[in-house]
Amino acid sequence: MSTTTPPTASAPTTAPVSQQWVLTLSCPDGPGIVHAVAGALAGLGGNITESQQFGDPLSGLFFMRVQVEAATSREDLEAALQPVAEHFAMSWVLDVVGRRVRSLLMVSKAPHCLVDLLYRERSQAMPIDVVGVVGNHPDLEDIATFYGKPFHHVPVTRGTKAGAEARLRELVAELDVELVVLARYMQILSDDLCREMPGQIINIHHSFLPSFKGARPYAQAHDRGVKLIGATSHYVTGDLDEGPIIEQDVARVDHSRRVEDLVAIGEDVERQTLARAVRWHAEHRVLLDGHRTVVFR
Amino acid sequence: MSTTTPPTASAPTTAPVSQQWVLTLSCPDGPGIVHAVAGALAGLGGNITESQQFGDPLSGLFFMRVQVEAATSREDLEAALQPVAEHFAMSWVLDVVGRRVRSLLMVSKAPHCLVDLLYRERSQAMPIDVVGVVGNHPDLEDIATFYGKPFHHVPVTRGTKAGAEARLRELVAELDVELVVLARYMQILSDDLCREMPGQIINIHHSFLPSFKGARPYAQAHDRGVKLIGATSHYVTGDLDEGPIIEQDVARVDHSRRVEDLVAIGEDVERQTLARAVRWHAEHRVLLDGHRTVVFR
Amino acid sequence: MSTTTPPTASAPTTAPVSQQWVLTLSCPDGPGIVHAVAGALAGLGGNITESQQFGDPLSGLFFMRVQVEAATSREDLEAALQPVAEHFAMSWVLDVVGRRVRSLLMVSKAPHCLVDLLYRERSQAMPIDVVGVVGNHPDLEDIATFYGKPFHHVPVTRGTKAGAEARLRELVAELDVELVVLARYMQILSDDLCREMPGQIINIHHSFLPSFKGARPYAQAHDRGVKLIGATSHYVTGDLDEGPIIEQDVARVDHSRRVEDLVAIGEDVERQTLARAVRWHAEHRVLLDGHRTVVFR
Amino acid sequence: MSTTTPPTASAPTTAPVSQQWVLTLSCPDGPGIVHAVAGALAGLGGNITESQQFGDPLSGLFFMRVQVEAATSREDLEAALQPVAEHFAMSWVLDVVGRRVRSLLMVSKAPHCLVDLLYRERSQAMPIDVVGVVGNHPDLEDIATFYGKPFHHVPVTRGTKAGAEARLRELVAELDVELVVLARYMQILSDDLCREMPGQIINIHHSFLPSFKGARPYAQAHDRGVKLIGATSHYVTGDLDEGPIIEQDVARVDHSRRVEDLVAIGEDVERQTLARAVRWHAEHRVLLDGHRTVVFR
Repeated sequence: MSTTTPPTASAPTTAPVSQQWVLTLSCPDGPGIVHAVAGALAGLGGNITESQQFGDPLSGLFFMRVQVEAATSREDLEAALQPVAEHFAMSWVLDVVGRRVRSLLMVSKAPHCLVDLLYRERSQAMPIDVVGVVGNHPDLEDIATFYGKPFHHVPVTRGTKAGAEARLRELVAELDVELVVLARYMQILSDDLCREMPGQIINIHHSFLPSFKGARPYAQAHDRGVKLIGATSHYVTGDLDEGPIIEQDVARVDHSRRVEDLVAIGEDVERQTLARAVRWHAEHRVLLDGHRTVVFR
Repeated sequence: MSTTTPPTASAPTTAPVSQQWVLTLSCPDGPGIVHAVAGALAGLGGNITESQQFGDPLSGLFFMRVQVEAATSREDLEAALQPVAEHFAMSWVLDVVGRRVRSLLMVSKAPHCLVDLLYRERSQAMPIDVVGVVGNHPDLEDIATFYGKPFHHVPVTRGTKAGAEARLRELVAELDVELVVLARYMQILSDDLCREMPGQIINIHHSFLPSFKGARPYAQAHDRGVKLIGATSHYVTGDLDEGPIIEQDVARVDHSRRVEDLVAIGEDVERQTLARAVRWHAEHRVLLDGHRTVVFR
Repeated sequence: MSTTTPPTASAPTTAPVSQQWVLTLSCPDGPGIVHAVAGALAGLGGNITESQQFGDPLSGLFFMRVQVEAATSREDLEAALQPVAEHFAMSWVLDVVGRRVRSLLMVSKAPHCLVDLLYRERSQAMPIDVVGVVGNHPDLEDIATFYGKPFHHVPVTRGTKAGAEARLRELVAELDVELVVLARYMQILSDDLCREMPGQIINIHHSFLPSFKGARPYAQAHDRGVKLIGATSHYVTGDLDEGPIIEQDVARVDHSRRVEDLVAIGEDVERQTLARAVRWHAEHRVLLDGHRTVVFR
Repeated sequence: MSTTTPPTASAPTTAPVSQQWVLTLSCPDGPGIVHAVAGALAGLGGNITESQQFGDPLSGLFFMRVQVEAATSREDLEAALQPVAEHFAMSWVLDVVGRRVRSLLMVSKAPHCLVDLLYRERSQAMPIDVVGVVGNHPDLEDIATFYGKPFHHVPVTRGTKAGAEARLRELVAELDVELVVLARYMQILSDDLCREMPGQIINIHHSFLPSFKGARPYAQAHDRGVKLIGATSHYVTGDLDEGPIIEQDVARVDHSRRVEDLVAIGEDVERQTLARAVRWHAEHRVLLDGHRTVVFR
């Protein structure tokens, strides 16, 4: 069990005014959890405005996400929740609703996911703060620049991979990065890097996993003659294309579509699937349940 | 505020064994509701397995659906909940999860919704107990008979409408009917009858309301050249085609479809839309919020 | 190249009245095919009411489906088309639009696809004539009987498989069967039987192929934590779950769904996916292009 | 009948090399049309690579779109088609496949459709050449500039409407505009302007027409409690929100969505619906059939 406080949360610590908090937690299932959490929040005068629970009979774990409006400080909230969390052996995260998650976008040459995420950030359609864009190719610098984002060109070749990952670690540390989004980044991260940021790296795979793992999924889909193509957004683990799935979607195709048509049609599916996954993550709606996810939409 | 106990609930009143209960409620929104309900349930040793809330900022109402596993009698549950309900001025319903809602299906000549609902009942895909089928035409008697359901032929002409509705009221009373499903019943019920059973009559309208109200919606849709056709399942009020919407769905069509094609394509949309609405109603997932619905799926 | 005349086509051979014909063909691609076919049909006074073409750059094959209204006999039509077919080395099929394809349904215990297909046949939603139902279990006899269909109980055990397939061959021959539909038939047909009826056996697989081949796909899907489940209808070849795909569809699920929920949700996807595939086949809309299909919807 | 040659088509008039042509036509239905067209094209050595037809039994009109690969000049093609067109009283358009249609985008303050169309143009996902952006507000100039497009600020007030439309007519003439796209342009064009450019102005309406015409459709949808929201792309006629529909799509919503959520969710539906309509128009896939459209996708 652990108390994870997002590193850059700028919650007020004095003169509390009423605001929305979001609490997510998981623990071994059992009676009394909802009552205990609701009681701790009610004791501070909090009004629960949204709440979702799920008990997984397979893992025996209980998951909860609750939004509460309360005129209280983070210290007081944590003090009220701490005994409950300890009693039920909870992993929990407390954050301010709408706080923008510091995100680093990683790209190669395909612009569609980058354009989409930067546009949605600027439209305030998702609570992320893109603190930088990393490209192993320089092609997309102009888009980053248009949206006012620093672009870091970090080329990767067989010989320079270790150095490139070291540079990534530096950027993550320097920029206080909470979330890395692989927005059609065509390099594979090392197992070590994946393990250092569990549940903090989101990828978009351009197929309906577990169909068509690996490279060139649209060519595989075309060869198999499928009638729907898809995209899968998932957390990255060391196990390539096997990380916990956050969101999937599909689009209909027919026999007349060539591989390049599938690629073009797939772009729309990819960017929407990735955008939903990133938004849900940033809104603390995604909880890990072993190699699967609980998504409280 | 009112305590509505389903008329035929066969909950055990002695020797309580552990079972699943479902509680739905609505009341003016305010702090402490979730905590109070969770507390009343926890006091009886109940374990909340599913819970959903919604506070409507427009109506100022709070809605909640909670499933709880508890080894308790209905009397004890009601006794524990009664003070909470009174304190918050709740409308509430308590039922056993999976209890089959006594349902009367009304049809005319089109069989697709009838076949679908009877099949789903037999497959245990929805907790309903179809206690009879009423047809203003005799055409569908064989289907009712195949599924072992009494078929009541109640013809309706301009002159006999009052008498036909009297017969309906008799059937509702005799058969202890909790839910009436208009499964493509092509007659309009009187305002009086609608008012007698608020939130207890579900209709399927063969268009994407509010488009194409009234008769011959597919002909209207064809004439307008729409690219999607739809169906809408809603509670019946005296206001024709204006009742609270429970569920809607659509199917894609193109220019080559004639009116009769739209009718055929629409059948699949209608039966699925109606089936979802009936199932959610029977599972106590649909709550009325003025002229709209809250659906806890 | 071959001229395949459906065995039971009851086209008028004398006193031709105007009716709709459907012609499907494939041949090596090249200039002049459409013109030659249109010319042969125009020479008989035919009016083309629907026509679709596709040239596959990978296989180098050209595919065409054309509906034509003509007051002509089958003999005259075939005589007009024969020189064109020979010139372009065509495989072709000529049929009367709406002629019902003699179909044998094979089932095990799950009724949803059987109920759906028999209902659609009776509703004239697809041009099939179900000439019999074969079950390796006796469970679904009552449904077949209700729809007036002979039910053949052909049990299959390890020792009796060869005998069971011999009985199938007899039924196919006796009943002049043109199409076999595996409507959730849970036995695997032998390679020999598959090879005897190429493009004439349609299966429904309860997953989004190529994900989750083999048995228990919903359990696999649940374990992988997918967010969409699917179904695939395909022609059966000796290569299990690898036959040419005709149609696929999906339904959205979330973390709260258990394996049994996926099975129930999947039923609706399966029956609709299979129904579309069977209807398109019966309407001569599906052409084989190697291990893929061309579907002229 | 009329021969419409796109104003800026830069077809080769000498030294013909093989290229793809697209021919669209409509005329009174009757026998022999396909044969005659195919014959004219075959006479020039053309190879038909794609062809679609539709005969509308209601209007009695026949529609056809054919792509043909031919090493011929525009003059020779037109000379070959002219007699056929006259014989059948055809309206027809001949163009080079992939020629970019000169388009003017009109916007107000909402950027999502503008961003989307400019991105898709740059990605070569649709054959348009955006020759300028007109805004009645200056807000979106930076986006136009980023994509290298001239931005014309043409404010509209009650008193200046006539002058603003005069400026539009100038721009259409100066820039040789073939297509005007109202990309969430919040002003209503005058009847006169609409009549001057029939089938050349495409709008996106932010509802599933004919539901919720007029202003504030998402507020209306929220009030009605619909479970799906939609968008409709249509040609603009003098009859507001009644023009021929090109494409529609929907997204699922539930009771918890506020009006502002519907607006945000709707953005994705709008931009995709508009993008498909514009692409199909630019690819000559949309034909007018009275107040409806034929879309050869």
